[in-house]
Amino acid sequence: MAGTDKRNLTAAGGAAPAIVLVQPQLGQNIGTAARAMLNCGLEEMRLVAPRDGWPSEYAVAAASGADRVLEAAKLYGDTAQAIADLQVVYATTARERYMVKPILTAREAAADMRAKAAQGLKVGVLFGPERMGMVNDDLALAEALIRIPLNPGFSSLNLAQSVLLVAYEWFTAADATPGREERYGDSPPAGKELLHNFFHMLEHELDECGFLRNVEKRPSMVRNIRNMFQRSGLSEQELRTLHGMIACLTDWRAGTDELGEPVRRRRLRKGKPAS
Amino acid sequence: MAGTDKRNLTAAGGAAPAIVLVQPQLGQNIGTAARAMLNCGLEEMRLVAPRDGWPSEYAVAAASGADRVLEAAKLYGDTAQAIADLQVVYATTARERYMVKPILTAREAAADMRAKAAQGLKVGVLFGPERMGMVNDDLALAEALIRIPLNPGFSSLNLAQSVLLVAYEWFTAADATPGREERYGDSPPAGKELLHNFFHMLEHELDECGFLRNVEKRPSMVRNIRNMFQRSGLSEQELRTLHGMIACLTDWRAGTDELGEPVRRRRLRKGKPAS
Repeated sequence: MAGTDKRNLTAAGGAAPAIVLVQPQLGQNIGTAARAMLNCGLEEMRLVAPRDGWPSEYAVAAASGADRVLEAAKLYGDTAQAIADLQVVYATTARERYMVKPILTAREAAADMRAKAAQGLKVGVLFGPERMGMVNDDLALAEALIRIPLNPGFSSLNLAQSVLLVAYEWFTAADATPGREERYGDSPPAGKELLHNFFHMLEHELDECGFLRNVEKRPSMVRNIRNMFQRSGLSEQELRTLHGMIACLTDWRAGTDELGEPVRRRRLRKGKPAS
Repeated sequence: MAGTDKRNLTAAGGAAPAIVLVQPQLGQNIGTAARAMLNCGLEEMRLVAPRDGWPSEYAVAAASGADRVLEAAKLYGDTAQAIADLQVVYATTARERYMVKPILTAREAAADMRAKAAQGLKVGVLFGPERMGMVNDDLALAEALIRIPLNPGFSSLNLAQSVLLVAYEWFTAADATPGREERYGDSPPAGKELLHNFFHMLEHELDECGFLRNVEKRPSMVRNIRNMFQRSGLSEQELRTLHGMIACLTDWRAGTDELGEPVRRRRLRKGKPAS
């Protein structure tokens, strides 16, 4: 259902941040960055002097359907022009920069941006060119730096992946998806009465076949078995399946042959003629 | 300093999860996934039947230095073999799957994995092939599904980007980086006495030049000016710079010409001969 959901993801929290790519080198990276932005509900891309020119067919190929972000991207000659109408600007940087400026994690920056946007402020994030990162003069244009916490031994991120992590934190900062959701398909979770009926049926069959014959151990064995099934959070449908499994497995007790030996009852379901 | 820091990032929390790529198609995506893993301190990659064979020069080219992840990657014929030694397995999926199984966000899954790993359990995460995602028989091998919350109108992530987000959440779940860090370079934050000295100097000069001549408004103007500088969280070095700026700007009051008009004092620093 890509592209069909037109909900304004940021209606409640003010305008989403502009993503400003400063002197990006490869069109492909601009395209993957656009895709990552749209994955996270960001649509406003600004480009400062892309090295290989603009528009770029490589960008379109890499955007995998996020074309509308590329089509709406605005082009600027320098960083100051690109952020002229913004009120709060963050700059991403991987390296230590001896600037007197707060350094935020991507998560903290997302919370900060949400708060600023909710006040009606127009926010943007600067990303430097691949490899070199941003020049200090551009970093000095920002209120704060964003540094994404990563493996200190291998922290160099691809441009689009930096954009993805910053955009993902922006998205999740206002996302209400529950951390854990139990799914039961079309069948609701089984009520305890159904579960207890199953336990009684199962324990009756286990008594019949002699599995629970040790009187002393029986109570703890029963508890252990109940715990196993209890832990699974069974749906009504799954309980019906378990009932059927046990019934089928115990089918053999339904009859005896002429010598009094137990035999499987004729499996009508399986053996019934097609007519 | 890529590759120089050998700290074991997960020493305190048990073994890091294995990343299992099921039937990945493009070597390039395997390489970018390896890079994303190492960015987040994960080194154990498992490959189930990669379409274009293994090893892959495209993977190495795309790994941008995360070669050791690729070199150590293990190859398996099917998913069941690939996870045989694991105790807890999560499967990533973007689509609705009518399976009776908990669905976790990437963040919740990370917390869950950290808790399981801390108990000494061996954990892994399954990622399906590009485009198609995982087949239901493989999803059924997992305890829980991971679904990354994203723009519902455009939620399809590239394989390496899915790996990045899951690995990033794993990393940040145990990362102690403070959300906000104030940086002062080599100079400590200024003490209040230095700040007040600057205020007094500034206000004296503003009285002298007549900027604060409105007696009624003076108290609130002084407060507003103090607030501006107070808000900046100035370092000692920055206060010295401000002192120097004000001193230089007020240089002209240092002398008068023969007619009693104020003149700039001769700028010795600028005009001094080189000798």
